[in-house]
Amino acid sequence: MARQPVPARRADAERNIASILEAGTRLLSADPAASVADIAKAAGVGRVTLYGHFPSREALVDAVLDHAVDIADAVLEDDSIDTAPAPEAMAGLLRSAWEVLDRHRRLFLAADRVLATERIREHHERPLRRVERLIARGQREGDFRRDLPLPWLVTTFFSIIHSAAQEREAGRLAPEQVEQVLVRTMLSLLSPDGGPSTPPPANRGA
Amino acid sequence: MARQPVPARRADAERNIASILEAGTRLLSADPAASVADIAKAAGVGRVTLYGHFPSREALVDAVLDHAVDIADAVLEDDSIDTAPAPEAMAGLLRSAWEVLDRHRRLFLAADRVLATERIREHHERPLRRVERLIARGQREGDFRRDLPLPWLVTTFFSIIHSAAQEREAGRLAPEQVEQVLVRTMLSLLSPDGGPSTPPPANRGA
Repeated sequence: MARQPVPARRADAERNIASILEAGTRLLSADPAASVADIAKAAGVGRVTLYGHFPSREALVDAVLDHAVDIADAVLEDDSIDTAPAPEAMAGLLRSAWEVLDRHRRLFLAADRVLATERIREHHERPLRRVERLIARGQREGDFRRDLPLPWLVTTFFSIIHSAAQEREAGRLAPEQVEQVLVRTMLSLLSPDGGPSTPPPANRGA
Repeated sequence: MARQPVPARRADAERNIASILEAGTRLLSADPAASVADIAKAAGVGRVTLYGHFPSREALVDAVLDHAVDIADAVLEDDSIDTAPAPEAMAGLLRSAWEVLDRHRRLFLAADRVLATERIREHHERPLRRVERLIARGQREGDFRRDLPLPWLVTTFFSIIHSAAQEREAGRLAPEQVEQVLVRTMLSLLSPDGGPSTPPPANRGA
């Protein structure tokens, strides 16, 4: 039989990759120990095909996490992040981020087992840019503290929300508690010290 | 040649394990990618002996982390944790915990690469009991908030201090910033909402 022309083979490969990532997201979000064989089966591809694209379980989990964060980032797209008062926008962002993380928290735990935290964080660069933009606006408008570095405040968001996923999975936080706990934790961490906030001066002067 | 009597062989094994854990702590705290072969060499034991005690790199890193946390826990032994005002005791505990974590932060990163966060946390059970005792006292004395669950506040301590180690290693926090950033972050996260704290009532009534 003649070989398929190259464009058709490339289209096949793309379809297979899309099926593998979709099946990987679904299976790992249900069970962080889901096997590569199960994911291949659910994707309707052979193991050899899967390993051709993702040479190890680690590479597969890495790609699935990236795929899931893309989905999450699309969910977080919301104009109010730039318009609502910063604390209110932060509460909304936390709720949306938690909703999507909670749905995929077992996938996050699968990633936590095989990837370094720094790598997991790299995958979250796009959603963390939304967090950074919002915290920077809150700092400018005087709603958020300015005595801690912006990158650190962004890190605390990443760290606190992922800790909640761990706590929820370990049974140390009840499902109905999480949203309120996250909102209270982040807002008290972000609020300016020493009482009501005053907007920072537009210029620090020369 | 006659076999050694059992007690002598057991003493040899204990000495070897102690040397491996000491060398592992030292080498992994300098380079999170230190190899098993390097650790065996530094410990003065053969690789076969090392693998006899720790069958995989993961098992070795797990045991080294446990050993290092024991050292850290001894460093944190300080009576003022039970006597100083809770916010002051918390600042002191953060400084001591950071000092010892910073010294071993690459070992922590080595563990982060091969162990799940939940497992790393299990190893920290003893130092986290100190944190829990202090936060509970601060809650009783009205210095720390009571609107968030105690186990969650303990988790934020674990999560925030380990995030600082990541940030420090990634160059996103300067060494001289870390202590102040940690103390400010934890104290604002722990402080009671809405102004001056009032001690909780002794009984909630029936």
